[in-house]
Amino acid sequence: MKTSLECIPCFVRQSLDVVKMITDNAAEHERLMRDCLKWISEINIGLTPPAVAQILHRKMREVTEVKDPYKAAKDAHNNLASELVAPLKSRLRSSNEPFFMALRYAIMGNVIDLGAKNGISREDIYAEMKNADKQPLFGDLNAFKNMAAEAKKILYLADNTGEIFFDRLFIEQLPASRVTLAVRGAPVINDATREDAELAGIGEIAEIIDNGSDAPGTILQDCSPEFQRRFEDADMIISKGQGNYETLSDVEKNIFFILKIKCPIISAHAGLPVGTYVASRLKPNK
Amino acid sequence: MKTSLECIPCFVRQSLDVVKMITDNAAEHERLMRDCLKWISEINIGLTPPAVAQILHRKMREVTEVKDPYKAAKDAHNNLASELVAPLKSRLRSSNEPFFMALRYAIMGNVIDLGAKNGISREDIYAEMKNADKQPLFGDLNAFKNMAAEAKKILYLADNTGEIFFDRLFIEQLPASRVTLAVRGAPVINDATREDAELAGIGEIAEIIDNGSDAPGTILQDCSPEFQRRFEDADMIISKGQGNYETLSDVEKNIFFILKIKCPIISAHAGLPVGTYVASRLKPNK
Repeated sequence: MKTSLECIPCFVRQSLDVVKMITDNAAEHERLMRDCLKWISEINIGLTPPAVAQILHRKMREVTEVKDPYKAAKDAHNNLASELVAPLKSRLRSSNEPFFMALRYAIMGNVIDLGAKNGISREDIYAEMKNADKQPLFGDLNAFKNMAAEAKKILYLADNTGEIFFDRLFIEQLPASRVTLAVRGAPVINDATREDAELAGIGEIAEIIDNGSDAPGTILQDCSPEFQRRFEDADMIISKGQGNYETLSDVEKNIFFILKIKCPIISAHAGLPVGTYVASRLKPNK
Repeated sequence: MKTSLECIPCFVRQSLDVVKMITDNAAEHERLMRDCLKWISEINIGLTPPAVAQILHRKMREVTEVKDPYKAAKDAHNNLASELVAPLKSRLRSSNEPFFMALRYAIMGNVIDLGAKNGISREDIYAEMKNADKQPLFGDLNAFKNMAAEAKKILYLADNTGEIFFDRLFIEQLPASRVTLAVRGAPVINDATREDAELAGIGEIAEIIDNGSDAPGTILQDCSPEFQRRFEDADMIISKGQGNYETLSDVEKNIFFILKIKCPIISAHAGLPVGTYVASRLKPNK
C-alpha cells in the first residue's frame, strides 16, 4: 500500500521520538527536528510507509551517527515481555484451544509498536493482556490452522522487540521444526533483529534468519537474495504486524497477516475497525 | 509559554485538517502538505504556540485563498451545541450550586477544540457531558466566585465555536451586565468570532467585542488598541481554553484561567494532569 498523507503526523512523531532518544541537548533537538520536517516535506508518497520510514530513520542515524536510537527502549520491552510471558504459558497449558490462544497472545504482543505510537507503558500492555483471552479473531481460522499443520516451509516474519517473546509462544504451537523466523537485517525503530529473537529463545525451537534490510517492513526488492529465495520457497508466510502488512499487502503469495489494527489508515485499507485482531489473508476476493 | 517541539505534531495535524477541508483534490493536498511541512520546519519556537499557529494558518489561507476553512465544522459545532444546552439549562435550574455547575459546563464545552484534536464527534461531547456534573474543579473556587461577584469589569475571553453556547450558560451565572465577552477578530481554526457569540445569544446578556487579532489565543501586542485598553481596564479576566492560557500565562494581571487540560505540554506547564477541569489563576506562587 502507498503512503497516505495521514501517515505524515506519524513520521513527524517518530522523528521527535528519535530526536529525544538521541540526545538531551535542546538545541540539537531543534536542529534535528527542522531537518526531519524538511526531509518529510520531500518524501515520495508513491512508496509504502515503511519505505518512507526506512529513508527517514536512515537519515537520522547518518546525521547523528547513532546506530540504534531505540536500543534502551528495545531492551526495556524485551525485559518486560520476558516477565509477562511466564503467566501466559501457564494459561496456555490449561487452555482448550492453545493454538488460537497463543495466536491471540502473539497479536496482543503487537501493541509493542513504537512505529504506531510512542511510549508503550507497562499499563498499556497489562490492559491489553487482561482482555486478550476473549478477543475475537478476524479471519478464516480453520484455514489458518490447517495450513499451518500442512505447510512444509513456514516463514514467520517478525515485527518488534518485546513482541517477539509473545511470537515465541505462538511458534511453540506451530510445527516449529518447519518454521523459519525472519527478523530485520539491521536496527530500525523498535523492530526485532537477530539478537532479540535469540534473547526470546526462538533459536532453540526454530531457525532464525534476517532479511538483510533496515526497513520497518518487508520490502522484497530491498531484502537479501537469500531472504528472497526463502520467501519464494515458503509455502506459507505468517506476516506479523502493520509494517509487514503495508509492504506485502500487494504481493501474490500465500500470506497470512497476523496483527492488531492500530491506525485508521490500515483500518481503511483492510476494511476492519481499529483494534481488530486479524489472522487472515486479508484478500477475501482472491 | 514558548512553543515546545512536542507542539509540532499538532501543527502538522492541523495542517492536514485544513488541507482536507479546503479541497478534495489529492494532488493539491500533497502540494499543500509539502508547503506546510516546510513552513513548520522554519517556525520560531521562541513564540507561543498560538503565535506559531497564527502564522501557519494565515499562510494556508493566503495560499489557498480560502478565508475560513473551518466554516462547515464551526457551523456543525454551533448547531450541535445549541441542541445540547437545553437539557443542561434544566439541570442548572434544579442545581444547588448553579454557579459551579455552569462553570463545569463551560469547561466541558472546551472539548470542542479542533486545535488540540481533530474530528470532535457528537459521541465525544456526550461522553464528556455524562460526567461533567461530577467533575472535580481545580482552583480556589471561593476566590473565583467572590472575585466574580465583586469585579466591576469582567473581561471574558472566549475560545471556540460550539463551546461558546456553554460559555453563555456560565455568563448567565455571572453578573452579566458587568461582563464583556471578547472573541477573535477574524476566523482561525474553529475559534469563535462575533458571529458565533451572537448566534449563542450572548449579545442579549453581555457586551461583545473582538480582539482584532487572528491568533488562536490572546497575543496582547497583536490585539487592537481598543481591546488592549479593555484588557487593561478590566479588574477580572476570565480566560477560556488552552490557546488563551498559552498566550497569557506570563501576563501579570488578575486572570482566572478556565479550561480543560487537553495535552501533555499544557499539563506539564500547569503541573496538573491531562483531563483536569481548571478554574484557577494557575500561579500559586504569585
